[in-house]
Order: sequence, then C-alpha cells, then structure tokens
Amino acid sequence: MIYLDHCATTPMSAKALDTYTKTAQSFYGNEQSLHDDGEAASQLLQHCRAKLTTIIHGKSEGIYFTSGGSDSNITALLSLAYGNEDYGKHIITSPLEHPSVYQALNRLNQEGFSVSEVKVKSNGEVCLDSLQQLLRDDTILVTITHASSETGVIQPLKDIGRILEGKNVVFHSDTVQTFAKVPIDITSYQLDAISISAHKLNGPKNCGACYIAPGTNWKGLYSGVTHQQGWKPGTIDIPGVTAFTEAALAFHEHHAETTAYWKRMQQWMLTNLSDDVFSLFGDIDNRLPHHLALRAKGKEGQWIMLECNRNGIAISSGSACKSSDSSPPKSLIAMGHTAEAAHGLFRISFGKDTTYRELEKTVEVLHRITA
Amino acid sequence: MIYLDHCATTPMSAKALDTYTKTAQSFYGNEQSLHDDGEAASQLLQHCRAKLTTIIHGKSEGIYFTSGGSDSNITALLSLAYGNEDYGKHIITSPLEHPSVYQALNRLNQEGFSVSEVKVKSNGEVCLDSLQQLLRDDTILVTITHASSETGVIQPLKDIGRILEGKNVVFHSDTVQTFAKVPIDITSYQLDAISISAHKLNGPKNCGACYIAPGTNWKGLYSGVTHQQGWKPGTIDIPGVTAFTEAALAFHEHHAETTAYWKRMQQWMLTNLSDDVFSLFGDIDNRLPHHLALRAKGKEGQWIMLECNRNGIAISSGSACKSSDSSPPKSLIAMGHTAEAAHGLFRISFGKDTTYRELEKTVEVLHRITA
Repeated sequence: MIYLDHCATTPMSAKALDTYTKTAQSFYGNEQSLHDDGEAASQLLQHCRAKLTTIIHGKSEGIYFTSGGSDSNITALLSLAYGNEDYGKHIITSPLEHPSVYQALNRLNQEGFSVSEVKVKSNGEVCLDSLQQLLRDDTILVTITHASSETGVIQPLKDIGRILEGKNVVFHSDTVQTFAKVPIDITSYQLDAISISAHKLNGPKNCGACYIAPGTNWKGLYSGVTHQQGWKPGTIDIPGVTAFTEAALAFHEHHAETTAYWKRMQQWMLTNLSDDVFSLFGDIDNRLPHHLALRAKGKEGQWIMLECNRNGIAISSGSACKSSDSSPPKSLIAMGHTAEAAHGLFRISFGKDTTYRELEKTVEVLHRITA
Repeated sequence: MIYLDHCATTPMSAKALDTYTKTAQSFYGNEQSLHDDGEAASQLLQHCRAKLTTIIHGKSEGIYFTSGGSDSNITALLSLAYGNEDYGKHIITSPLEHPSVYQALNRLNQEGFSVSEVKVKSNGEVCLDSLQQLLRDDTILVTITHASSETGVIQPLKDIGRILEGKNVVFHSDTVQTFAKVPIDITSYQLDAISISAHKLNGPKNCGACYIAPGTNWKGLYSGVTHQQGWKPGTIDIPGVTAFTEAALAFHEHHAETTAYWKRMQQWMLTNLSDDVFSLFGDIDNRLPHHLALRAKGKEGQWIMLECNRNGIAISSGSACKSSDSSPPKSLIAMGHTAEAAHGLFRISFGKDTTYRELEKTVEVLHRITA
C-alpha cells in the first residue's frame, strides 16, 4: 500500500518506538507516587515538557499532557471557557475546525456560551475584517486552527494575535497538523494556548498535549484532580510522552529540509496532474507543505478515494474523524464552493518517507481512473 | 528497587511491549479511514473487543476504548447518568471509590443529580442493608467498586446485582484493580457496566476500556462524535489496544496459578510480620490476592513508605491518584477507623514476578524501621 494519508495518522518512527520500549522498561513508575520509581518518572516528564516547549518558544510549565488531539481541543476549550466565564460568554471560531472543536463548542453553547464563526476568504484563509467585526466586549476566547486537515491552508495566526493584542481575550489554536512541522512562535503570535497530537508526527497514538501560557486563566473540568495541577485525571503515559517528545524533536530539528522536500513534491504533483481534470482547493502557496486538497472534474472525492484504494493507494476524502458523515466539508462551503464541488474533495498528504516513485504511481492511477 | 506498588501501576510485560511494537509497525492506519489500512486497523480492533469480552463473559459490541481507568470511570458515569436522567437523578455509590468516581459524581451533583453513599462494614465490605435503604424510585445508577486500591477488600457484586434485579437501575463497577485478576461474570453479577485500565495488568498506560452491556441507555458527553458510536472522540490507539488485550489475556489465562501464588505470599507476609507491631485493614480472606493494607503501631503510613523507599523498596501510602492529598483515606474512616489509625495505612501490592526474596527483604526492612 502506498500510504498518502499522513494527515489522518502516521506510523510511529523506529526511534519513537525504540524510545517507547526503553522507557516502558525503565521508567514504569506512576509519576504521582512518592517513591523513587515515581520520582524518576516525574523527572523524565519534566525533561519532556522542557524539550517540547523549545519547539514553540514556550515555558515548560505550560505543557499539559492529554490523550491526543481531540482530547487536547476539548479539554483546552472547556477549561479556558470555564476559567474565563466571569469576563463574558462569547467565543469566536472558524468554519475550518476539527470536529472536536465543534464538539466542545456545542457543549459550551448548550451551557449558555454563544459562539460566532468568522468568514473565510475564497483562498481558505480566515477573513481578518470579519474577526474584527465579531469581537465584542464579552468575547473571552478565540479559537482558530493553524491549518485545517481538509483545506491544508495555513491561517494568519500572527495577524490574528495582533488583532487580539491588549484585549482580554484568550487566543487558542488547534496546531495538530502543524506542530513541529510549521514554525509556531507562541510569543510573537501572542497565542495563549495550543493543541497538539503525537500520532500526526510519527509519535504514538493516545498521546498529545496542550500548551497553556502560564498566567492564562483556566478551570479544570473536574474538581479534586491532583494530576497535572488539576488539568486532567489519570496516570500519565511516560513511555508515550517520551516517544512523542522524541518524534516531535526529530521533526522539528529537520523541519527546514523536510519542508523543502515536501514543497518540491507538492509542486511536482501539481505540475504532473492534468489541469484539465484536477484543481486545487485553497491557497497554492500558503498551505501545509505535505498536503494537497484536490478535486477531479465531475468525480466525487469518496469515489476517487475508493478507486485509489483499489489500486493500492491510501488517500482520504476528508477528515478521518468524520469519515462516516456524508455532508460536504464545511470548510469548502465557507470558501464559497458549491456542495457538489465540495463533495469532490480528496486529500493527499505525504510523510517523511514518501518517495517520488510513490507519487508517480499515484499520478498514473489518478489519470487512469479519471480518464 | 524492589517494586511492591503494582496497584499504582505495573511495568509493561515483554509480550505486551512486543505486541505494541509489531502492531505499531503493521497496523498504523486510522480505524476511521475508509481505505484498506484503515479497514485492517478496524478489523484488528474488532478482534481485540471479542477477546477482551471472553474475560467477563460479555458481548464484543459492549467494549468501548478509553485512555485509562480515570477516563473509563468518568466517561461511563457521566454517559450512564445522562442516558438515564429521564428516569430519575439519584445515584448511589460507596465511600470506597477511586478519586475519578468522585470527580464524575461531583460534576453530576453540580448538574442537579443527587448522590448517596452506602455504609461500609468494619471488614471493608459495603453494607447491603444500607444499599437497600438508599434505593429510591428515582435511583438510576449504582456504582460500587469491585475492590478499592486502598483497602483491597473485594465487594459483593453478585449480592448487589441480586438486590438491583428487576429494578430500572444501571449497575456499574470500577473493576480497574480486579479485571482479569479476580473473576467477573457480567451476566451472573447482573452488571451493566464496568471500567477497566490496561496499566494495572502489565499493559500500556493511557489505555483502558468500558464495558457497557448492549441495551443499556447511555448518552455521549459530546454531540457529533463519529468514533465508537459516539462514545468518545479521538483516534483509537490500535497498538495500545492490542498490547492491552495481550496483557489482559495473559493474566486471565493464568489467573488461577497467579492467584494461588499471590495468596501464599500474602499469607507468608502476614505470618512473618510481627502481630505486636503490624495489623491488617479490612477482611483477611475476601481481598485482592496481591494486596495488603497494613498499619504499623504508632507510625504514619507516609513515614513507612518513605523509610521503605530509603531502603530500596517502593510501596505506597494510599492511592497514587491522590498522593498529594493529605486527608486520611475516606474508605478507612467509613470502616470505623480513627483518622490517626487511617493515617497509618501503607499498602503493599505484588506483581506477577514478585519473589519471596523481595518479600523477605521487605519484612526485614519493615521490622528494622519500626523497631
């Protein structure tokens, strides 16, 4: 199988697996335990926190571990909303978000918060004027993804940060698709919180983190929790966290070369796919380097995906987290596409080890099935 | 270090680690993805569900994966309460529960549910008469642990099931300390739901499950979730789940020998610890086979734990999930002990590989530090 669905999930790298194994053998204590085995686990955890924050120029005490991207988004958004509800109950988001963001916001909405969505430009970027207009005195939280897995378009977080500057508004971003791949500077973007997942960057599944800038108000979902300063109950997965840290650092340290490699591949694909049949959704330059959101004239994305699968190529027709949902991608509708066009979406996403040979085969199959 | 804190967490077994590694290498797809890599992951997951349910005589469609014991308890209790609130808002629990049970119930209490606690007998078993008396027409849920990690006393789930028979009450038990170690028969115990954790039985951390008997009402915490029939969002950790299944089956298949080995060890410890100094909390027979809840005359449990640690022995002075909480164990107070006596609690819990040599050293140290 040629695996071109790295935005859905990635295989664990050999080094991450090795780190997992070694940690599981040597640091199996419960970091809450007060004996030396617990203390050793706790110290290793601190080390991982410090290492992870170098990637985003944050402070190690801002890292809270979770069980993945959805958990990060839900826990962050609820905790930030509850921690700031004394200042207001208005939240701003976009139509580009991961399902877990809407799951959290729907719950907040049921609990009396109101949620507005910014408009999106035809190139897939959020409209900054729309954000300006939506801001109210009672706005406490803005959550805009760094890049949606559907469109792959990178959002202008720095500009959003500038708009929110000096306002008493918490700025959160779902960086699940970008962390350690696309540079994120917490300070210069004026971000207060981000969500991260390990299995999108060759780390383990069921593992992720939130960064919450120290000083940001938040309130845990459950009272009486002693783990992670009340953030989230449950024994921390030290082997998972160390493997995650290993995988994230491997991406971060080689991010410039990987980006250059991917960008050439992206360009190669676009050059070699016939313009008469295939078109790109979203901005051509300002996008995830390993991602192409495409459409083949007159074909459903789901059909393309299934035909590719029959030919030994794994791609996706949208977010795996809503693969059983048949409505057209909300993000594409927000960009002004018709439902028919939006249903055409199929997504190709590269990994570190993707080869040109695999892309050649993919281009050949795509032309054959659409001929 | 002699590790005698297996109720806090256990090291992953070599076979579980090997299973994790092999699965991570071969089944890395997202089980929600519709291509063959996703389908292979999904089929493996089904296989694990079927295997896990053989341990409790359940049905494979009743297994829902979680990120561990706390997550299992919280998700189960909230989902069961929300799914049955049309029938009433009264919940019964015990003073023997894991902190995560109280975290969920406190939240439900804030949301308008009322929670009662059954009385406990001096041997650490819940009082069945008290349960009978607490039952009301609007009782929708009873949650009683199978065995608390503090006292180790096994609760009469079968008798509780009999009391609830024919009533419209969901019966849940936290079986984190017992699953695959102490027999559980979902059907004959008339249990509707249980919580399970993988890292208590030499499986991976951040991994667990709930069993919810098919036909039991529940309502997911978040709307719009496509994973696991709406149970919980997030990509399922297939390597973790297979390693968990491997570890659970290994325990289950050898449970009779392991229990016999542990029971001899338990007896050996009690015989060799001086009666003048050491006493046992809770029932002597009806307890987890790998667990001793002890007290040394005139000494704080915390002090015993720290002195053991200085001598290279890892034990605990209560639940690791509340190690930073200095109040006396609630379970022991409920059994009628004074706060001073309850503060004396220290816990020794064996693993599969614990040796008599390790126990000899432990007995020697315990006598020396208390002399």
